[in-house]
Amino acid sequence: MITIETLSDIAALADRLPAADQAARDAALARQNSLTKPPGALGRLEELAIFMAGWQGTDRPRIAQAQALVFAGNHGICAQGVNPFPQEVTAQMVANFQAGGAAINQLCQINGAELQVNALDLDNPTQDFTTGPAMTDAEALDAMTQGAAAVNVQADILVLGEMGIGNSTVAAALAAALFGGSAAEWVGPGTGSDPAGIARKIAAIETGLRRHSGLGAMATLAALGGREQAAICGTVLAARAARIPVILDGFICTAAAACLYAADPRMLAHCLVGHASTEPGHRRLLAALAQKPVLDFDMRLGEGSGAALALGIIRSALACHNGMATFGEAGVSEA
Amino acid sequence: MITIETLSDIAALADRLPAADQAARDAALARQNSLTKPPGALGRLEELAIFMAGWQGTDRPRIAQAQALVFAGNHGICAQGVNPFPQEVTAQMVANFQAGGAAINQLCQINGAELQVNALDLDNPTQDFTTGPAMTDAEALDAMTQGAAAVNVQADILVLGEMGIGNSTVAAALAAALFGGSAAEWVGPGTGSDPAGIARKIAAIETGLRRHSGLGAMATLAALGGREQAAICGTVLAARAARIPVILDGFICTAAAACLYAADPRMLAHCLVGHASTEPGHRRLLAALAQKPVLDFDMRLGEGSGAALALGIIRSALACHNGMATFGEAGVSEA
Repeated sequence: MITIETLSDIAALADRLPAADQAARDAALARQNSLTKPPGALGRLEELAIFMAGWQGTDRPRIAQAQALVFAGNHGICAQGVNPFPQEVTAQMVANFQAGGAAINQLCQINGAELQVNALDLDNPTQDFTTGPAMTDAEALDAMTQGAAAVNVQADILVLGEMGIGNSTVAAALAAALFGGSAAEWVGPGTGSDPAGIARKIAAIETGLRRHSGLGAMATLAALGGREQAAICGTVLAARAARIPVILDGFICTAAAACLYAADPRMLAHCLVGHASTEPGHRRLLAALAQKPVLDFDMRLGEGSGAALALGIIRSALACHNGMATFGEAGVSEA
Repeated sequence: MITIETLSDIAALADRLPAADQAARDAALARQNSLTKPPGALGRLEELAIFMAGWQGTDRPRIAQAQALVFAGNHGICAQGVNPFPQEVTAQMVANFQAGGAAINQLCQINGAELQVNALDLDNPTQDFTTGPAMTDAEALDAMTQGAAAVNVQADILVLGEMGIGNSTVAAALAAALFGGSAAEWVGPGTGSDPAGIARKIAAIETGLRRHSGLGAMATLAALGGREQAAICGTVLAARAARIPVILDGFICTAAAACLYAADPRMLAHCLVGHASTEPGHRRLLAALAQKPVLDFDMRLGEGSGAALALGIIRSALACHNGMATFGEAGVSEA
């Protein structure tokens, strides 16, 4: 279990977090090269099996239990007119998740993940970051702790997602603050902003960046982020402590976890990104994090939808890895 | 049921084959736009659900039964040293399929397809196409008929694959004959040819192209193809007659089906390509067929592996399409 006293302690955690098990990776690669196929012929599926081996610390990684966590929050920045949907939609969508009617419900069911939705104080949005920090350090730490506590340490893999009206603006603000570039370079339509809405997003972010400049990565999370972003950071750290590989979702989820990367790039070594979103900032962010997404499906929904879809691919990767016969077992001649 | 008397009859079939049901597609699109997500936010998953709706002729397409068919054949062109593996590997891999030890077995099991493997006269390879036609018209028609007969007309979707030592050379020969370009532009390493092996592949194809020039698409199939290629063409036609959508696999499977496209492009309207292979000719072939592959995973195994992996994605697409709540049902506000 990870205990975090202050936000500024977080970067130093990187030295104490577990690393991938290189021996397990090597053994998994040796197994892949013995299976009845030309070496490398399963491409990315082989890489995914070896990734899983390293984090699970075994040459035969398995997914008996997959957990999906979706965090929801509300954002004071909505006062700047950054989203065409009313803010009540966050709670309405949480109710939809709880009733089983959203995309993430179907994708978790068919890809075998147990979904848990955590609504974080929806009636109490964060502060508008154009006028002050979105969260106090204590609020950010509390949300991180809630995220960390939600992780099932028995899970074999963790799928992460988010919901929060206004949070594509929050994500773009975080990305610009962490990695540089203008607000316009990180902003996109989100749930469906028109050009005037996009202009309001850019203006709000520019104001926020001026007001909260020169901060460290985790202080930036508090100043510009929201509760679901902080919770995602908490889950990523708790999963790492338990050596659980994580599948991040699209732009907003990745931007949240990027706060940890900016604190220390090693912190995301156990994370995959499930898909490349069409939200334009996502590809830029993937490049900044040196992450190659599992899927590229023109999706832009959030909720963990791209991560849950990628879970099915990882199940296929492990099915091949564990179930295929070797050349010797099958009596197949080699080249 | 389709009855084919001569190879030259095949192109004319295109006028009589069923088309996609546009009303079902429109209704499926209307449903997608009513579901609790911004319209289009599920990207390619929405397109796949609408594709399935059109071919199944219902706004609520389903996959209760998925069939996977893998056809295996041996090739006289192996006499030209085009493959580093001995030709017995074809039968050894068929035995591996039957014993459940290959990648396709695991991928069918986890993605919910019933696998049937059809070995086509493996002890009697086709003729070496550098010295004469690979098959007589009667042999090609017989293999097409076997392919057509293997289709379960109750299936909701069909996954296609192949196995045959030497058949990446056959695929490159077919692609060059059907779509032009030099042999070298279509040839790649296949199961693992070195530069000298690739040079032998190119030389064999150049000889074959000179010997069998100016033929129609289906006569090209007989002259340069093999039994598994002809069987794949037969299954694609039989599936179309039964309005069953088809998922093609990589370079070799796609090149086989491309004979039908060259006869009449409408013949592949019910086909998806499951993935883009790293075999270099595949991207060129996908461009020639105006096909956008479902996945791009650096795979190059054949056996239907990329098609079976794509089946899982289509299951996810239909789970969202059928299982999600509409805005009205969920009581979620619109923008």
